[in-house]
Amino acid sequence: MIIDLRSDTVTKPTEAMLAAMMQAKVGDDVFDEDPSVKQLERKVADYFGMEAGLFCPSGTMTNQIALRISTQPQDEIICDVRSHIYNYEAGGIAYNSLVSVSLANGHYGRLSADDITGCIRPDDVHAPNTSLVCLENTVNKGGGSYYEMENIKEIHAVAKAHNLNLHLDGARLFNALVASGQDAKAYGKYFDTISICLSKGLGAPVGSVLLSDKEGIKRANRVRKVFGGGMRQAGYLAAAGIYALDHHVDRLSEDHRRARILGEVLVQQSFVKEVLPVATNIVIFSLATGLTPQWLLEELLKYQIKAVPFGKEEVRFVTHLDFDDHMLTKTRQALEEISEVVMKSDKI
Amino acid sequence: MIIDLRSDTVTKPTEAMLAAMMQAKVGDDVFDEDPSVKQLERKVADYFGMEAGLFCPSGTMTNQIALRISTQPQDEIICDVRSHIYNYEAGGIAYNSLVSVSLANGHYGRLSADDITGCIRPDDVHAPNTSLVCLENTVNKGGGSYYEMENIKEIHAVAKAHNLNLHLDGARLFNALVASGQDAKAYGKYFDTISICLSKGLGAPVGSVLLSDKEGIKRANRVRKVFGGGMRQAGYLAAAGIYALDHHVDRLSEDHRRARILGEVLVQQSFVKEVLPVATNIVIFSLATGLTPQWLLEELLKYQIKAVPFGKEEVRFVTHLDFDDHMLTKTRQALEEISEVVMKSDKI
Amino acid sequence: MIIDLRSDTVTKPTEAMLAAMMQAKVGDDVFDEDPSVKQLERKVADYFGMEAGLFCPSGTMTNQIALRISTQPQDEIICDVRSHIYNYEAGGIAYNSLVSVSLANGHYGRLSADDITGCIRPDDVHAPNTSLVCLENTVNKGGGSYYEMENIKEIHAVAKAHNLNLHLDGARLFNALVASGQDAKAYGKYFDTISICLSKGLGAPVGSVLLSDKEGIKRANRVRKVFGGGMRQAGYLAAAGIYALDHHVDRLSEDHRRARILGEVLVQQSFVKEVLPVATNIVIFSLATGLTPQWLLEELLKYQIKAVPFGKEEVRFVTHLDFDDHMLTKTRQALEEISEVVMKSDKI
Amino acid sequence: MIIDLRSDTVTKPTEAMLAAMMQAKVGDDVFDEDPSVKQLERKVADYFGMEAGLFCPSGTMTNQIALRISTQPQDEIICDVRSHIYNYEAGGIAYNSLVSVSLANGHYGRLSADDITGCIRPDDVHAPNTSLVCLENTVNKGGGSYYEMENIKEIHAVAKAHNLNLHLDGARLFNALVASGQDAKAYGKYFDTISICLSKGLGAPVGSVLLSDKEGIKRANRVRKVFGGGMRQAGYLAAAGIYALDHHVDRLSEDHRRARILGEVLVQQSFVKEVLPVATNIVIFSLATGLTPQWLLEELLKYQIKAVPFGKEEVRFVTHLDFDDHMLTKTRQALEEISEVVMKSDKI
Repeated sequence: MIIDLRSDTVTKPTEAMLAAMMQAKVGDDVFDEDPSVKQLERKVADYFGMEAGLFCPSGTMTNQIALRISTQPQDEIICDVRSHIYNYEAGGIAYNSLVSVSLANGHYGRLSADDITGCIRPDDVHAPNTSLVCLENTVNKGGGSYYEMENIKEIHAVAKAHNLNLHLDGARLFNALVASGQDAKAYGKYFDTISICLSKGLGAPVGSVLLSDKEGIKRANRVRKVFGGGMRQAGYLAAAGIYALDHHVDRLSEDHRRARILGEVLVQQSFVKEVLPVATNIVIFSLATGLTPQWLLEELLKYQIKAVPFGKEEVRFVTHLDFDDHMLTKTRQALEEISEVVMKSDKI
Repeated sequence: MIIDLRSDTVTKPTEAMLAAMMQAKVGDDVFDEDPSVKQLERKVADYFGMEAGLFCPSGTMTNQIALRISTQPQDEIICDVRSHIYNYEAGGIAYNSLVSVSLANGHYGRLSADDITGCIRPDDVHAPNTSLVCLENTVNKGGGSYYEMENIKEIHAVAKAHNLNLHLDGARLFNALVASGQDAKAYGKYFDTISICLSKGLGAPVGSVLLSDKEGIKRANRVRKVFGGGMRQAGYLAAAGIYALDHHVDRLSEDHRRARILGEVLVQQSFVKEVLPVATNIVIFSLATGLTPQWLLEELLKYQIKAVPFGKEEVRFVTHLDFDDHMLTKTRQALEEISEVVMKSDKI
Repeated sequence: MIIDLRSDTVTKPTEAMLAAMMQAKVGDDVFDEDPSVKQLERKVADYFGMEAGLFCPSGTMTNQIALRISTQPQDEIICDVRSHIYNYEAGGIAYNSLVSVSLANGHYGRLSADDITGCIRPDDVHAPNTSLVCLENTVNKGGGSYYEMENIKEIHAVAKAHNLNLHLDGARLFNALVASGQDAKAYGKYFDTISICLSKGLGAPVGSVLLSDKEGIKRANRVRKVFGGGMRQAGYLAAAGIYALDHHVDRLSEDHRRARILGEVLVQQSFVKEVLPVATNIVIFSLATGLTPQWLLEELLKYQIKAVPFGKEEVRFVTHLDFDDHMLTKTRQALEEISEVVMKSDKI
Repeated sequence: MIIDLRSDTVTKPTEAMLAAMMQAKVGDDVFDEDPSVKQLERKVADYFGMEAGLFCPSGTMTNQIALRISTQPQDEIICDVRSHIYNYEAGGIAYNSLVSVSLANGHYGRLSADDITGCIRPDDVHAPNTSLVCLENTVNKGGGSYYEMENIKEIHAVAKAHNLNLHLDGARLFNALVASGQDAKAYGKYFDTISICLSKGLGAPVGSVLLSDKEGIKRANRVRKVFGGGMRQAGYLAAAGIYALDHHVDRLSEDHRRARILGEVLVQQSFVKEVLPVATNIVIFSLATGLTPQWLLEELLKYQIKAVPFGKEEVRFVTHLDFDDHMLTKTRQALEEISEVVMKSDKI
C-alpha cells in the first residue's frame, strides 16, 4: 500500500464517479454543444453567484486566462511572493500576458489591504501600470491558510478605489469554504474572476472552471482557443466534476481533520523544526538543522510514503480523498519511528 | 436522426472505446505517472519512427507548441494561405510565438519546394528571419488533398539547405496514410515535429500528440505547462486514443469512399458550381451564382443535415465514423430534392 | 562625386538646417521639457489637424507604436502584401503587438474598400479579431504611388462600419501631398493614427512623429518608453525637423520631376523590362530576362551610382534633396551607356 | 538661476561639445555608413575590452535589448528589487522579453554571490528557467553605491557554474570607475553584455551603447530594428558621445565631491531622518516623520531648486556637469534655512 501525500491531485476517481463519467452525455464543445460541460459551467457559476463559467483542462489555464483578460501588456499585477501563479505556472504571467509582478509578502501568503496599497505604482511613464490584484485561497505555500471574508472585503475596497481588477486563484477554494463556513456567493460578489479546480480536493481526474461575467467569459473563450484548451467531447471530464461537486465537498472536513492530526504529530518529532499552522488539508514543516528534505523523503519512502520537498528546507504533506484513517495511523507510526532513529543517531 | 457533416470532430466514442476508457490505468500525468498517457505517447512516436511524444488536449495546442519550440520571436514561418495554423488557431502564431507569416499559395493547399524557396527572406536586419516551414496533410481547406512523398522529400531538401525546421500539421495525417498507402515512418524521417489528432477521423473524444526528438519534447513540456495543458489523470482520454489507433485507422477508407460518392453526387446538382477534387474525407464545393452557403445550410437543416460554411461562397462536408451508408443515402436524396426545387425556382 | 539613389534617407542636413540644429533650445524630453520637441510635435499635429504628436527616433517606431495602441494581442490587421510594416519592420507586427496579418493585394500597393471588406474575419473563436486597417501613402513598394482622397474616404467608411481603426504609414506622406495637392487636414480627419517621417524626403537627419488624439499619445508615450525610444535633449533632432517642414516640403516637386525623367529614360533602355508608373520620387523597374539586379548595381557602381535591389528582379531609384540636375544628367548618360553595351553583348 | 538636482540626465551640451556635434561626419547608419557612430561603437567596445558595440537612443533600449538577446520567453532573470530594469523601464522585462523576475534584496542594491544562488530555480516544468543575472553599477536606488571587483568576480563564478549569462546595467558605470579606480577592461572580462549611457554623468544629449561579442551585437541590431531604434544620420549624437568620453570622464570626481558635501550637509538638517551612504553622485535621504517628499520639493522650489521624490518617503539629489560649487553653496543655504523654519514650526 502506497501512501501518497505529495498532492491532492493524485486521487483517482471513485467507482461511482467513474460510473457518472461513463454515462455522461457528450457533444463537441468547440461547437458549444457538450451538455455535460454546459451543465458543469452553469452549476459552478451559480454556486458562486457569477454570470458564466468556462471549463478548462487545468487550473494553470484558468488562472492564466484570467490574468490575460484582466490586463494589458505592460501592466503589473500584485500578488504574494508565495503565490502559485508566480511560482508554479512556468513563467506564464510574463509569457502569456506580458505583465510584470509586484510581489508582496503577506501573512502565510495572505495579503492585507495595506500590502496591496503599498504595491500600487504611481501613474508614471517609467513604471508598469498596476491593473490587477491576485489572491490565492487557500494559500498552498502558506500551509493551506485561508482568508477571512472581512479581509477580502477590505482588499476589494482598495482594489476598486484604484480601479484594479481582483482575481481569485481558488484551486482549493472549497477547502476554504468548508473550513470557514463562508458563503460561496460572497466570493462571486467581491471577485471579477475566480478559478476553481476540480482535480484537487474534489477528486475529479481533470479540469478547472473559470468564472467571470459573460463578456469576460467570451473573451476567455478566445484565449482558451489560442492556448489550445478547447476540447471536443470533454463531457466525460465535466461529468466527473459535477459528481465531485455533488458528493465530495462536505467530506473535505475529513481531510482537514487528518491534516490537523498530522500537524500535531509532526510538531512532536525530533527531526521537525517548525510546522506551519494547519488550517485545511496542507501541512508544511521545516526540518531540524542539518537535515534535508531529500533525506526525509528517502526515509519516508522506506515506509511507502511519498511527499514533496517544498523549497530548500521544507516538506509538504497534503491530505485527500485517497488518504484514510488507516493510512494516517501508518504515517504516524512511520514518523515516530524515524524520529526515534534520528534521536539515537548524531544527526541533529 | 441527425446527420452531422460539419466535421469529423463531432463523433462520439463507440461502446468499445468507452469501455477501454473506463478500464484505463491512470495516474497524475503532471508527475509523469499516468501509464495510459505514457503508453499512447510511446505508441504514436513508434508509429512514425520519432523519439518521443507529448499528449495534449487539442491539435491547436500541439501545433502551437511545435511552432514555439521551432522558432524565436521575430522569426517568420512559411505556410499555405489556407493552412489551419494561420486561419483557425485564433491568431496563435503571432500571440504564442511572436513570429510572422510568409503566405504561399499552393496547389489545393499543398506547397511545392519552389513555393517555399520563393518565400525565404534574405538575411537582412529589416526582415524577419525565416526559420520554419509548416505543411498540413491532409489540407483541410484544400478539400482534404494530400502530399506525395516525393514532394515532401523535395521540400525537406530545400528546408535543410536553408537551415529551416519542418513541421507537419497532421490533424488528418491518418487519412493521408490510408488514402496514399505511404509509410508512416517516412514522415518521422522528414519532419522535425509532427502534430497528430485523435479526435478527428480516429473518433477519440479529446486529444492530440506532438512528436519530436527527446530534447524537443522536453521543451514542449514546458510550453504545454505554461498554456495550462498539463492534465492530471488524463489516462481516460489517452486510452481512447490507444483504442482508436488499434481499431479506427483502416476504416478511414470507408469515410473516403463515402466522401467520394458525395462529391460525385454534388457535381450533378443544379445548385453546385464546383466541387474540389475529393481525395480523402472532405468535400468542399462552391454554390451557383446567387446562392449563399447560409441558404444551403438552412435547406439541409430541413432534412436534419448539418454542414458548415467554408469561406464566403463554399460549403464543407466531412465524413466520419458516425456517418454511415444509410446516412449517405439520405443525404443524397436530400441533395437531389433541393436541386430539383432550385431548378424549378428562379433562384439560379 | 557619388550619386546615391538608394533611398531618400541618405541625405545630409544642409548648412542652414545644421545652423538651426545648433541654435536649438533643448531640455530633458523624458521630463517633457524639451521646447524644440514640443514645438515640432505641436507643429506636425496642427499641420494634419490632429490633437497631439510624439517625436520618435524612427518611422519604424512610430508605426509600431501605432499598431500597438490600436490593437490587442490576438487581433489581426489588414494591410497590403507590399507594405513597409509587413516587409521592412523586422517582424514587429507579431513581435511588438502579437497580432496577425491579413494580406491584401492592392493596385500598386493601394487598397480599395473592397479589398478591405474581403479581409475582415468573421466573429469566430477560431479566427483572430480584425481590428485595424493600415494604409501606406505613398506606397514604397508600389513605386511611390499615392491614394486619391476619394478612396481613403471609402476605406474610412468601411473601417468605421466594422469598428476598425485606421492607421496611415505616412513615411512619404509629404510626397503624396505635394504630388496630389490634397489638403493635409483631410488625413487628420480620416485616420486614427498617422506616422510621418522627417528623415526621408524632408532631409532631416533623424526622426518621425506619431499623430493621434491625446489619449492615444498618452498610451503611445508609455510604449515609446518600453522600446527605449524616450530621448533626453532630443531638441537638436527636432529642430532639424522644424526646419525641414518650413523649407523642404514644396521642393519635393523637384524630386518628383527628376524621378519622372528617370522613369522616361529607363523605359527606353535595352536592359529594362518594365518601369512601374512614376508618381512621386520612387522609380522601380524590372530587368530584361537574364539580367539580375546585382549585375546592374555593379554596372552602376562603375559610374559611382548607387541603388538597391528591390525583390528578386527589380531595382529601385529614389530621388531626394541631394540628387540634383547635374546628377540626373550623369545618371542618364550612365544608363544609356550601359544599355548600349548590353545591346552589343549577347546578354539579352 | 535654476538648480536642477533631479537627474544627471538634465545637462545640456557644453559649447565645445556642441561644436564637436556640428562638425561630425555622418552617414545613414541603417545602411551601416555613419562614421561617427562606427567610431563611437569601436571606442566604447575597446574601452571595456569587448568585441563590438551598438549605439542606441537610450539606456532603456540597450538594457532591454541585452535582456532579449540573453534570454528565451519563459526564462527568468535575477536582479535586485531596486534595479532600474525592474522599476523604471515600463515593464519591459515582461513586455519585450516575456521573462519573469526573481527579485533579490541586496545591500544598497548590490547583490552577493549568495543572493544569486538563492534565486536560482530548480529545473522543473512548473518553474521559469533561470538564465540571466543583471547587476546595476552604480545602483541608482542604492544611493549610487558601487560594486567591488571581488564581488563581481564571485558573482561571475556562480553565474557560469549555473550556465547563466551576466548583464551589467552600467548607466553610471563611469561614476563607479572614477570612484573606485577599477580597470574598465575587467568589466569586459566578466560580463556578457554591458549597457553604458552617454547622457547621464557624461553630459551628452542622447544615447547609450550596448556592448557584447560580435554575434550578440548582430542579434542586438535586429532587436534594435524591431523597436524602431535604428536611426539615420545619428552621427551628430555619436559625436557628442565621443567628445564626452574624451573630456567628461575624469571630472566625475567633482560631482562625487559635491554629492558627498550635500550628504554631509543633509545629515545635519532637522527635516532629514537618514541619508544613504554617498558613494558617487547620488544622494538619497528620507524625511523626518510627518514630512512628505512633496512638501520638501515645494520648499526647495522656492529657492529655484529642483529634485525628485524617490519612493514614498525619500528624496533624491543627483550632481552633474551643470551643478557647480556656486550652486552647491546656494543649495546648502537653502537646506539650512528650510531646516530652521521646520525647527521653529511644529511640523516635526
